Amino acid sequence: MNSKAKLDAELRTQALLMSAIELLNWDQEVCMPPHGIYSRAALTGLLTSFFHQRVKDTILPLLREIEASPDIDEETRAEVRLMLEEAEIAEKLPTDLVRQFSEAASIAQQAWAQARAQSDFELFRPHLEKLVQLSQEKAQAIGYQTEPYEALLSLYERSVTPQQVEALFSELRPFLVETIRLCREANLLGLAGPPLRMPASQQKELIRRVVSQLGYDLSRGRIDESEHPFCTGISPDDVRITTRIYEDDLTMGLLSALHETGHALYEQGLPREPQGWPRTKAAYLSVHESQSRFWENHIGASLPFWTYLYEKVLPDYELDWLSDYSPLTLARRVNHIHPHLIRIQSDEVSYHLHILLRFELERALINGDISVRELPALWNEKIAEYLGLTVPTDAQGVLQDIHWSMGSFGYFPTYSLGSFLAAQLAEALTHSYPDWQERLAEGDGTLPLKWMREHIHQHGARYRMQELCERATGAPLSVQPFIRYIQQKVSLLYEGLAIPA
Amino acid sequence: MNSKAKLDAELRTQALLMSAIELLNWDQEVCMPPHGIYSRAALTGLLTSFFHQRVKDTILPLLREIEASPDIDEETRAEVRLMLEEAEIAEKLPTDLVRQFSEAASIAQQAWAQARAQSDFELFRPHLEKLVQLSQEKAQAIGYQTEPYEALLSLYERSVTPQQVEALFSELRPFLVETIRLCREANLLGLAGPPLRMPASQQKELIRRVVSQLGYDLSRGRIDESEHPFCTGISPDDVRITTRIYEDDLTMGLLSALHETGHALYEQGLPREPQGWPRTKAAYLSVHESQSRFWENHIGASLPFWTYLYEKVLPDYELDWLSDYSPLTLARRVNHIHPHLIRIQSDEVSYHLHILLRFELERALINGDISVRELPALWNEKIAEYLGLTVPTDAQGVLQDIHWSMGSFGYFPTYSLGSFLAAQLAEALTHSYPDWQERLAEGDGTLPLKWMREHIHQHGARYRMQELCERATGAPLSVQPFIRYIQQKVSLLYEGLAIPA
Repeated sequence: MNSKAKLDAELRTQALLMSAIELLNWDQEVCMPPHGIYSRAALTGLLTSFFHQRVKDTILPLLREIEASPDIDEETRAEVRLMLEEAEIAEKLPTDLVRQFSEAASIAQQAWAQARAQSDFELFRPHLEKLVQLSQEKAQAIGYQTEPYEALLSLYERSVTPQQVEALFSELRPFLVETIRLCREANLLGLAGPPLRMPASQQKELIRRVVSQLGYDLSRGRIDESEHPFCTGISPDDVRITTRIYEDDLTMGLLSALHETGHALYEQGLPREPQGWPRTKAAYLSVHESQSRFWENHIGASLPFWTYLYEKVLPDYELDWLSDYSPLTLARRVNHIHPHLIRIQSDEVSYHLHILLRFELERALINGDISVRELPALWNEKIAEYLGLTVPTDAQGVLQDIHWSMGSFGYFPTYSLGSFLAAQLAEALTHSYPDWQERLAEGDGTLPLKWMREHIHQHGARYRMQELCERATGAPLSVQPFIRYIQQKVSLLYEGLAIPA
Repeated sequence: MNSKAKLDAELRTQALLMSAIELLNWDQEVCMPPHGIYSRAALTGLLTSFFHQRVKDTILPLLREIEASPDIDEETRAEVRLMLEEAEIAEKLPTDLVRQFSEAASIAQQAWAQARAQSDFELFRPHLEKLVQLSQEKAQAIGYQTEPYEALLSLYERSVTPQQVEALFSELRPFLVETIRLCREANLLGLAGPPLRMPASQQKELIRRVVSQLGYDLSRGRIDESEHPFCTGISPDDVRITTRIYEDDLTMGLLSALHETGHALYEQGLPREPQGWPRTKAAYLSVHESQSRFWENHIGASLPFWTYLYEKVLPDYELDWLSDYSPLTLARRVNHIHPHLIRIQSDEVSYHLHILLRFELERALINGDISVRELPALWNEKIAEYLGLTVPTDAQGVLQDIHWSMGSFGYFPTYSLGSFLAAQLAEALTHSYPDWQERLAEGDGTLPLKWMREHIHQHGARYRMQELCERATGAPLSVQPFIRYIQQKVSLLYEGLAIPA
């Protein structure tokens, strides 16, 4: 067997191991009985260590051999280089640091949960300090060109630097602040109309129907409920999502299901062969998030979608509030702008100010410009400056998100990058299919999926996000499409309200 | 690290791998979307091959080294020998034969499903012939003392020979035939009273309540529904069962849940340490089956249990048929004797004639005394002889069970051995706790579980079934306790009806 055939076989095994790990994680969230966690942690740890050990022992030498060989075509070589980059990062991280990090994160998560429950940052502080210090060591081990945070960001999104993220936010921030100001002036902050109540069993039925209509193949997937909704790609033929149902409001469960459906459509649309190669895997996080944001916001929060729901779906359920609404007033309700202390309860506009705040703070922490001790006060200042809100307790402030307690520094920016990319892809989609929204209003969701299959899904992780963006839209990633998207939506929903870019 | 410590670590890894395989199988039956099977088969195959490769490459040499070492105690040496026996079988089977067998079985299962649907044995015949031939090769590879079938039986129950199974059945058969004749004469074959209808949601609630009462810890387990009920032990802290609910009769789903609960109580009662050693694993199949049969029949089909249900449980549901019954008439209904063409729909008495028939036929097949071509006619003759029934179609005859299409020859006898052992354990239990049935009638199911924990569960697979039986009951396995159990039950339920042994 030559090296290429050996690599094929090894990558196939890696893909299968990863799908076992995915299934273990899904089961842990959805099915596992409470006490199952004791041996589950050891099992997930075992398969993960098999996976990583094989990267170092088997995959890396094969990749080096093949990269140096003259016999392979340029496409293959490009993918080999992508894999090499990742495997070399794994190689650079000392086993001891990885172990220390994993233990510290595990303890920090417990401390964070307790600190949040008691709204007492001091309980969390020493653990966060430890994680920042270990993350700084991680950054040193990986290496960087201009600042330590660059190394951590690259773990989640390799084709973007902190400077680029900063530039995108600098361009966007005045628009976000101005939009919130204008909406407040126009008195758009409140909600009109009765709550969209719906029994859980009906919501589940409706969600199955709607996501199937949008192209999620449930013979290759399933929908469950969990505390924190998520999507798991076990294989392209087994892609599962969860959602969380609130009986007093249809919107939250439905939009969260659409978000996860975006992830699921991507996973279901990945090529099957050659198994384990980059082109069969999802790209880095911002590309994944572009898909979830597209289906959640550009579809789920759009007037055409609510027109379809209002005309074709909702009349099938006996909803006493339906007669109080029109498609337009429903879409207004879904799109109301209401700056909120909590990121995950925020609207599409103020959401990105939440991310900007976290990006600025975690970058300064990792680069050593601020200390963990200063964090709560800095958090509260920025919330006041960006959103005009006062933080009453740390539980509703600096302690609200789990990410830092997991040691995930560099992750937050991908949420915004995904939204920006979603808007840019939506413009390109409209260019290809100018009538996709009219057809969506009729209940036909095939065009967006067709376009994404062709321009995003079929490539898997062959290209970094920036290259994929250019190939799909003809331009590098920009915040301008996102700005235009918000402008258009606001002017469509609230006649006469125009927000300058 | 010395060899013993190395073995400890390796066995721990094996136990974790096996729990991953168990979870994959559970998920496949309960959760996996239909198309997920394509890559699931490859994944299960990968982990199984990891497991077996490690037995040959790592475990076997360590076991040999430790067995030869003078430094270990006799208890450890005994367990090492048990593991060696199994590992050496794995070593004897040529990889090529294992692969051929697995492929042939996979194809044969599909052919069997089609043959059964069309009731056309010819569609299945060539595949069964192939499996018989490969099983004969397997028997040769493993080796045996008196007949090829011995080698296959030993894969499922190591401490019993075909001659011993034959002797047990020779002793039992006249009793079974006579019981059916007497019940027919006494006109006990029909069912009196209205069907025990109950909505599925209520049945599920009742099952959870009853099995919890009997000691199944649902914080370390869960109950789902599946086509074929089963139990999966992922770890002692994660033991899951399934059942199948029939809304027109409470009995089937409940008894099937109690059967699986017996398996689950065993798995939950296994020692946790030293992980991967025989004492932490379930013993061979007949011991496992003794637990399921005990909870299904000695508890679930007993008058005390139906007294408890009648007095403490069923009144909480609005059941319009309840007033038509007493505990006695309910127990009579559950225990009605009705020879049936289908094994899994048979009563406790005729069931073992079904097993005897399969044992005789598969033994003759493997030993080369009959051909696959003769099988349907021989089947039908034996059904007429043992049960007095006429087989109308092969679908209701020779094609009814899946086991042979999976290449599982030697498996069926463990079903009967398990029942015999259950009856023998029940007598020993009664000797220790003479009032366990009175307390069960009050809803207290702790004594049987306490006794089984002490005499069966805590030993795991340290002893072979025969040794375990002697240790727990003071005597080798016998059919006499089973005969007494049926006699007592019939005379209790049907006053005046006495069946001679």
